[in-house]
Amino acid sequence: MKENVEKDDVVVLIDCNFKKYIIDISGKTDKIKGVGVLNPTILVGKEYGRKIEIGNKQFWLLTPSLQDKLQSMQRRAQIILPRDASQIIMFCSIETGHYVLEAGTGSGSLTIALASSVAPKGKIISYDIRKDFIEHALKNLKKAGLNQYVITKNKDVIKEIDEKELDAVILDISNPWKAIKNAWNALKTGGYFCSYSPLISQVEKTVNELRSQPFIEIGTFENIQREMIVSDFGTRPSFDMLGHTGYLTFARKILQI
Amino acid sequence: MKENVEKDDVVVLIDCNFKKYIIDISGKTDKIKGVGVLNPTILVGKEYGRKIEIGNKQFWLLTPSLQDKLQSMQRRAQIILPRDASQIIMFCSIETGHYVLEAGTGSGSLTIALASSVAPKGKIISYDIRKDFIEHALKNLKKAGLNQYVITKNKDVIKEIDEKELDAVILDISNPWKAIKNAWNALKTGGYFCSYSPLISQVEKTVNELRSQPFIEIGTFENIQREMIVSDFGTRPSFDMLGHTGYLTFARKILQI
Amino acid sequence: MKENVEKDDVVVLIDCNFKKYIIDISGKTDKIKGVGVLNPTILVGKEYGRKIEIGNKQFWLLTPSLQDKLQSMQRRAQIILPRDASQIIMFCSIETGHYVLEAGTGSGSLTIALASSVAPKGKIISYDIRKDFIEHALKNLKKAGLNQYVITKNKDVIKEIDEKELDAVILDISNPWKAIKNAWNALKTGGYFCSYSPLISQVEKTVNELRSQPFIEIGTFENIQREMIVSDFGTRPSFDMLGHTGYLTFARKILQI
Amino acid sequence: MKENVEKDDVVVLIDCNFKKYIIDISGKTDKIKGVGVLNPTILVGKEYGRKIEIGNKQFWLLTPSLQDKLQSMQRRAQIILPRDASQIIMFCSIETGHYVLEAGTGSGSLTIALASSVAPKGKIISYDIRKDFIEHALKNLKKAGLNQYVITKNKDVIKEIDEKELDAVILDISNPWKAIKNAWNALKTGGYFCSYSPLISQVEKTVNELRSQPFIEIGTFENIQREMIVSDFGTRPSFDMLGHTGYLTFARKILQI
Repeated sequence: MKENVEKDDVVVLIDCNFKKYIIDISGKTDKIKGVGVLNPTILVGKEYGRKIEIGNKQFWLLTPSLQDKLQSMQRRAQIILPRDASQIIMFCSIETGHYVLEAGTGSGSLTIALASSVAPKGKIISYDIRKDFIEHALKNLKKAGLNQYVITKNKDVIKEIDEKELDAVILDISNPWKAIKNAWNALKTGGYFCSYSPLISQVEKTVNELRSQPFIEIGTFENIQREMIVSDFGTRPSFDMLGHTGYLTFARKILQI
Repeated sequence: MKENVEKDDVVVLIDCNFKKYIIDISGKTDKIKGVGVLNPTILVGKEYGRKIEIGNKQFWLLTPSLQDKLQSMQRRAQIILPRDASQIIMFCSIETGHYVLEAGTGSGSLTIALASSVAPKGKIISYDIRKDFIEHALKNLKKAGLNQYVITKNKDVIKEIDEKELDAVILDISNPWKAIKNAWNALKTGGYFCSYSPLISQVEKTVNELRSQPFIEIGTFENIQREMIVSDFGTRPSFDMLGHTGYLTFARKILQI
Repeated sequence: MKENVEKDDVVVLIDCNFKKYIIDISGKTDKIKGVGVLNPTILVGKEYGRKIEIGNKQFWLLTPSLQDKLQSMQRRAQIILPRDASQIIMFCSIETGHYVLEAGTGSGSLTIALASSVAPKGKIISYDIRKDFIEHALKNLKKAGLNQYVITKNKDVIKEIDEKELDAVILDISNPWKAIKNAWNALKTGGYFCSYSPLISQVEKTVNELRSQPFIEIGTFENIQREMIVSDFGTRPSFDMLGHTGYLTFARKILQI
Repeated sequence: MKENVEKDDVVVLIDCNFKKYIIDISGKTDKIKGVGVLNPTILVGKEYGRKIEIGNKQFWLLTPSLQDKLQSMQRRAQIILPRDASQIIMFCSIETGHYVLEAGTGSGSLTIALASSVAPKGKIISYDIRKDFIEHALKNLKKAGLNQYVITKNKDVIKEIDEKELDAVILDISNPWKAIKNAWNALKTGGYFCSYSPLISQVEKTVNELRSQPFIEIGTFENIQREMIVSDFGTRPSFDMLGHTGYLTFARKILQI
């Protein structure tokens, strides 16, 4: 592993509030909040793991991890949070080498997490009906260095899915139940379906449609995450808490019920 | 993808209650609850995705997924559930090619999930002070077809860690705070530390020790999973719920605070 | 306060697992699990607060509290648990002297909690379409010494509510939205409506009907209770947890929206 | 029940965001946010339950309920929320006629809820070491019309409790374990102890001290409240959620363990 920044590296700067900036040393100058425009070449030679000062602000300098990539990306659409992305990947048994379809692409947050899971030999095929979302997501994917594992399509999964024998189909669209037939056709036998929906009515329609098709292991889960605060006074759950993200519905393709 | 079972396949049989049995077709006869001894060769030629009948009981026949491997494994020690394993993998940014140390090995449940994440080029180094746990875990890993990605060591991480430049160190031991110095030395710069502990007092000691060493992004989380039940009558959260699994404490190695 | 049991007292016996038995000293002999038939008069003269032995089993002897009454009652229908009953009472601002209608009576568990809240001058009017439920609940109310605060009616609130100027109307029926017009007519201005429903679809129909009528402060809440286990090893949330009881929907009568 | 405001009434004005103002019609002029100074006599003759307009702002006019009193009170110290207050009242079996000691008084929020529960014949004895808190709380109690049920004492429960034979002792202080001996002495046999503490370390010390004294039914609970949002799009849990309030520890006095 490199100990010092070289001229072709991509690095992450983390400020004292854990706000993160991914910087391509060989790239253009970048704007950093509270600092202004940064010429990346000034970082060459700095030691990874050290605190550096840029314009009165202090940053830790590291090689970007998957979490850094996810936390520094620019969001346009509402994103699927890492807590849910990780459950999707695990419960859909997504592994290196898999082919996974995702729709919609959105800001590309789930895409990044999925691409990291199937790399280096697998691929994510990401559909979105909005071209601007795809373009925005591609920028995030490039910045994360994961674009080579993603094929984007400006198409509607409800109308058509081109692929076959997919390991998983993941839907974050407003009417996932309408894409279930297409998903079944696109999946390999034993492949996983997942939909992410904030509303109960979406869950109900999706589950009922899944039950009318050859799927097994149909289930819906909600993940609630609580942070614990450890201080000199004692330990307690955080007062701040996100009350809801979305419901995850899973199912698995078979040939007959 | 294969459509029918061949003589060297490994398959999973899933019964109507979603109990799962992984069967090595080329292996020895296996015992299946409610069926008795099964000669695996009778499955050769059966179509994947179909329901088959063995001794009055019905099973779906599939190629085993990571979930099938996790759900069919035999537990000796208490295991880290997939809901927590997935968070560990995501929040430690574990990816293909990574080198990750885990202790203790236990039944090998987290080992299986980790091995699947770092395959095909990474490795899991799994320490346990109990030889019998390692042997049991190796059986589960072999059955899951992931043993080639795992190096087991009958050693105590509190005393010594041999490795250097690790991407992550994951501890599921009763006194993780005592291994933090060794973990720091074994991690690469920017590498992730994670400990899984059911008790608040363990969290407190671990967080306080982490704060006294060069680590950033120290945080503790609890994941609560609720199942939603969709029926003809309507939808509601499940009455059955696991009230607690464990607290996950994360941190990241730097060179100076 | 009495120090020793007298011949007209009602007492509670609490065993080592906190199972409770309410005993009327002047009443008939009673059956106690693991003890057999108990002649209540043998308890006369015993000191309250002491441990006594009856047929090899040990019990604490106390004057029954509201909790003792609730926890010792015999359940026929599914009951509203004290955690939800307490929220109903608080959020409906139920106080001594109030007149509150409840439907259905069920086993009388909520009835007992409500009666205790409005005593000594208020009244609970409890409707149920099943006569057997009312009879069973009356036995529980008598045992709890609260029957004088309750008027039961073998009637359907969906068809008709006789009362006017009620402080609150509490519904634990399968189709509460059908009783909302009757509830509005029966409530005083500013009076509270509450329905307890396990299913989301029930909540939706109820909330939508409430919104079409002159009600304000319409809201739905779910109460989740976690027990904490303190032991010599440390503290953690209990593994055992009830995942769901029911949703509580509240509203308040006004004359115009 | 009165239909129109009379000159000695106390009323509540509720604005469109459900912000509440309790107004004593026979009292002084009052300031209302967004309206300015209000001369209460202009409300005389208005009909309860109607929407009225004061200086371009609309309000519903009602007789104040317990909830109105709690929600309109001015907070100085952090308060115990109604969701926890209701559990305290229920699990301590507090009923009309009871004598209950509370410490500290704080802003008087729990005091109001307790006073309403024991009225008209019971009493709340409320200790606080800070005189300014007591004075502030008394204003809130007066406004709520419940001051006649409360006796305040500028004393420290850790040093001394004057009362005997209390039905319950409720502690919201930073070191409740230090008042347990005094609480035991002040309680009647079978009486309830409750402490409200945000931190795990407080719970541990309290539970361990309770276990060393003659108490039974020792348990600790956390109440988590989720709001459900019903909209035209569908239903989901609210994104806004309070992650933690405090842990409630209960116990009950006996004479011997």
